[in-house]
Amino acid sequence: MLERTYDAQVCSVARALEVVGERWTLLIVRDAFHGVRRFEDFQRRLGLARNILTDRLQRLVAAGVFERTRYQERPERFEYRLTEAGHDLWPVIVALRGWGDRHMAPSGPPVRLEHRGCGGEVEHRVACAGCGQALRARDAVMLPGPGAPPAAPEPVPAGAGTAS
Amino acid sequence: MLERTYDAQVCSVARALEVVGERWTLLIVRDAFHGVRRFEDFQRRLGLARNILTDRLQRLVAAGVFERTRYQERPERFEYRLTEAGHDLWPVIVALRGWGDRHMAPSGPPVRLEHRGCGGEVEHRVACAGCGQALRARDAVMLPGPGAPPAAPEPVPAGAGTAS
Repeated sequence: MLERTYDAQVCSVARALEVVGERWTLLIVRDAFHGVRRFEDFQRRLGLARNILTDRLQRLVAAGVFERTRYQERPERFEYRLTEAGHDLWPVIVALRGWGDRHMAPSGPPVRLEHRGCGGEVEHRVACAGCGQALRARDAVMLPGPGAPPAAPEPVPAGAGTAS
Repeated sequence: MLERTYDAQVCSVARALEVVGERWTLLIVRDAFHGVRRFEDFQRRLGLARNILTDRLQRLVAAGVFERTRYQERPERFEYRLTEAGHDLWPVIVALRGWGDRHMAPSGPPVRLEHRGCGGEVEHRVACAGCGQALRARDAVMLPGPGAPPAAPEPVPAGAGTAS
C-alpha cells in the first residue's frame, strides 16, 4: 500500500504497515467494524476526498482486507465487507484505541467497549502463552523465526531503549 | 502528526493515528523497542531520508513518545529514548506484528517473541476484563464514554460489518 517502501524489511510490522499504514486506511477499517459498508457512508463519516477513498478501498480489496459484493443490480451498487483477514485487524484497532484513550484523551475515553451481555470492559493485553503473565516490552526477547532471512541479524533485547 | 486532519473525529483511534499514523513513525518506534537510540542508527536501519527522520523524531518528541537526551558534550550528541507513553505503544506494535505474521508472512514469522527467562511465546489478545473470555469484534458493543461529545452518536454494534 505504501508502494512497498518498506519492502527491504523482512518484518511483519513493516509488512502490515504496507497494507494498513497509509493515511485513512485504519479509520476506514475502524468504521467497517462499526457496521459501515457503503462508499457513501464511509465518505460521509470520514469526510475524505472521494478519489482517496476509492483508492484506499481498492487497495484494501486487493490486499484481501475487504470483500466487494454487489447488493443491488439496477443500478449496480457494491458494498465493502471485512474478510476474515480484515476482521483480524480488530486487535490493532483496539490497541490504538487503548493508547489514544490513555494518552490523547484528557477528558476521558470518548467511547468505551463492553463485552456484549457480560458488561465487562474490552481490553487488549500482551501476555505469555506459557505462564500467562502480562508482559511489557522489557520482558520479551526477539529471536529469528521460521521466516527469517538466511543472514538474520543478531537477536536484540526487545525491552531495550526505555527512558524509564 | 497528520496536521490534525482527523481532528474533527472525537475518537481515540483517530487521535492515536495523528501521532503514530504517519509513514515511518511506527517503524521508528519499533526500532526503539529493539534498542535503537541514535539518529545514525535509526537512519542506517530504516534507510529513510535524513530530513524525514529528523521531522519524525521531532514530532515524536513533541508528542511525548520520545525523550531527547544528551549523551555526549563535545560535540553535543543526543539520543532518543521511549518515554512511558512511548513504551505504552508496545501492544500496537505487537498487534501489527501478529497480523503481519498471520497474513503477510508466507514463509512464516521472520521473528518470534519469547518471554525472557520463561521461554513462553508472547501473544496478544482482546479479552473481557470481567470474565476473561477472548473476544472478537462481534462480541463487543460500543457505548459513549466519559469523554464523549455532548451530541454523541447512537451506539452502534462494534461487531457489525463482517463478511464471514
